[in-house]
Amino acid sequence: MSSEPSKPVRIGLLGHGTVGAAFAELLAERADAVEAATGRRPEISGVLTRSQGDFGAILENSDLIVELMGGTDPARGFVLDAMRASRPVVTANKQLLAQHGDELFDVARAAGVQLRFEAAVAAVIPIVRTIQESFGVTEIAKVFGIVNGTTNFILSEMAATGAGYDEVLARAQELGYAEADPSDDVSGADAAAKMAILARLAFHTPVSLAEVSYQGIEAIQPDDLAYAKELGLSLKLLGVAERRNGGISVRVFPCFLYAGHPLAPIEGPFNAVMVEAPAITEVTMSGPGAGGLQTASAVLGDVVSILAGEAPVHETRTELPIVADVTSSFYLYLEVADQPGVLATVATVLGDHDISVKSVVQRGADDDARLVMVVHECLESRFAAAVVALGELDEMRAAPRSIHVIEEEF
Amino acid sequence: MSSEPSKPVRIGLLGHGTVGAAFAELLAERADAVEAATGRRPEISGVLTRSQGDFGAILENSDLIVELMGGTDPARGFVLDAMRASRPVVTANKQLLAQHGDELFDVARAAGVQLRFEAAVAAVIPIVRTIQESFGVTEIAKVFGIVNGTTNFILSEMAATGAGYDEVLARAQELGYAEADPSDDVSGADAAAKMAILARLAFHTPVSLAEVSYQGIEAIQPDDLAYAKELGLSLKLLGVAERRNGGISVRVFPCFLYAGHPLAPIEGPFNAVMVEAPAITEVTMSGPGAGGLQTASAVLGDVVSILAGEAPVHETRTELPIVADVTSSFYLYLEVADQPGVLATVATVLGDHDISVKSVVQRGADDDARLVMVVHECLESRFAAAVVALGELDEMRAAPRSIHVIEEEF
Repeated sequence: MSSEPSKPVRIGLLGHGTVGAAFAELLAERADAVEAATGRRPEISGVLTRSQGDFGAILENSDLIVELMGGTDPARGFVLDAMRASRPVVTANKQLLAQHGDELFDVARAAGVQLRFEAAVAAVIPIVRTIQESFGVTEIAKVFGIVNGTTNFILSEMAATGAGYDEVLARAQELGYAEADPSDDVSGADAAAKMAILARLAFHTPVSLAEVSYQGIEAIQPDDLAYAKELGLSLKLLGVAERRNGGISVRVFPCFLYAGHPLAPIEGPFNAVMVEAPAITEVTMSGPGAGGLQTASAVLGDVVSILAGEAPVHETRTELPIVADVTSSFYLYLEVADQPGVLATVATVLGDHDISVKSVVQRGADDDARLVMVVHECLESRFAAAVVALGELDEMRAAPRSIHVIEEEF
Repeated sequence: MSSEPSKPVRIGLLGHGTVGAAFAELLAERADAVEAATGRRPEISGVLTRSQGDFGAILENSDLIVELMGGTDPARGFVLDAMRASRPVVTANKQLLAQHGDELFDVARAAGVQLRFEAAVAAVIPIVRTIQESFGVTEIAKVFGIVNGTTNFILSEMAATGAGYDEVLARAQELGYAEADPSDDVSGADAAAKMAILARLAFHTPVSLAEVSYQGIEAIQPDDLAYAKELGLSLKLLGVAERRNGGISVRVFPCFLYAGHPLAPIEGPFNAVMVEAPAITEVTMSGPGAGGLQTASAVLGDVVSILAGEAPVHETRTELPIVADVTSSFYLYLEVADQPGVLATVATVLGDHDISVKSVVQRGADDDARLVMVVHECLESRFAAAVVALGELDEMRAAPRSIHVIEEEF
């Protein structure tokens, strides 16, 4: 970090909806961290909304443009103008990239400015960066996954409850996982736009949205899910881009997966994307596929990358102490004499150490019995003291064994 | 891509073991792609092995150093010398980073050169880049996961077969998943080095290997795994780095996870890492945690990032045709008259279209029956034709329904 005061980076923000507002707030909150990482402090120099702001004035006063308006018009013109005026652009606009990718990349290349769009696909899952940078020269065979959270939520709920499509869609709308007009999501069109972007990046070939065939989930029957369960299958709306017969195939369709498939456990509004290539085998990335703050985080990551230019050399910013004694939940295995009152004795020792039992299994074996239990989260030092005390009991037949447990059930 | 001939990038390669040899081969194979992506063609300008090559001469003739020797000595001196001579360095050396991180980053910063090390943690899973770049200004709360494939293989096998630790270790050694001297892996020391690196990056604070406490899997009993199964738990060797009480805790220990945990399904020699932060919720990345080619791919990704400098503007390199008719496996749902011979009729139609059945479930319901089946992979056009033919059968009570299936069972 330079000790000279540096000029702030002026960011022109186009759009102030859910993601735009979240980005403005996150940027203010993380301004110190951005300055530490890049040497430059970011500030919002202007905000364009539907009702206020002038694009020309904002462009004039900005070093970098963040486009979070959505839709292709007027976003397309603004992004093109910004790049032509040598301003790097960060956008979360999947439709813009999927429909006008050729034009946007041509202009970015001609102007020599960066165009970044991590948030356009799967929000904060860094799939765009991974494909462009980590796997930028890898011969990718296939990119596929769950890139629409609305449909994944609906299919998960249908499978879990046996309810019909219309009923679950209504519930998704109540919970904010589906929009009032859900057609873009449930038809597969939203996923198709994301797959057009990923296919272009993975295969270094122009792909336009019109070339992506898609099929949605509107026709899925509860019966299909019930029978599929018997066959050990779970249903996902998949986007698939892959090399086939010397060309590529880019499609979106509902698809059954066997239980061991890495995408099978992805439930609810989460997204997950897999990349396959001979040189990498397969890499799977999952996380929340939407959300204002999560999408804003992806946008901020892109902004920082532009400011950092070359990847920053790691910078130590703080000196945090190592905390040795932390809390954890534990599994505890005890071999005890099989006599009345042993469980009570063990429970008393644990209680004396302020440790509470979450679940316990007791099994007899000849004269001995085994007590296997999971205890709730407690300070490790306290648990260790309890284990020492248990080991000293007359009823103990072998040294107690313990293993950490992460307690949250998902 | 520039049309002028550009000077090649001379890469000095230190180390020519499994990963070094794989890297040299991969680099040659992908040289065209590297040139397309960065404008510069890479070539190996010298190779240092234990028995041949002179470091000084190699450094002199190189623009960039790739260190794949492993161990801290003499690797440490070579890497420091290279950076002091203004050569960017890519390394896969986790011990070097974990033990001498402060010194290495200080020298890199002072020299103004890049030091990249994606391959040092979890091979080709892009966790280093993700934490440094995508989440570089995110207030990360916790980074944790399975960062040692040997131990994950052993625990997976013990749980699946009920066999003891020694027996499964011997099997892992036969299969090449464990070394002749497995102590570095099974003791947790290898995972501790990786967690020291991830903790430093995630929390922007100096962390040395000596500060990471670790516990291995040598004492795990088959009994523990059997009882855990009853409690719905699976066992992993976890590395955990997290903020706790104003400081950080960085540790490696065996840990039980409930079935729904995102790390619970990670089996065999795979690695997986999760990052948690309020602004991102959680992101999980999984893939092969070792392997010569996979590790070499991560090294190549770092080399390309250094050559590209700023993130490359996306470049269209090829024009691949969209292939419309591809192969797939399918689920097929038929409502048919409940009369003898219907299954035979359906099977004949499928056979006529060269489609073979993988599994079938038949259920009666009043006068109708339901035939639910999964068919093996076939051209979609052929399957569509078969569905049309089935729909025309007199025995059909409703239009056939079909859904894609990914056939591989994992």
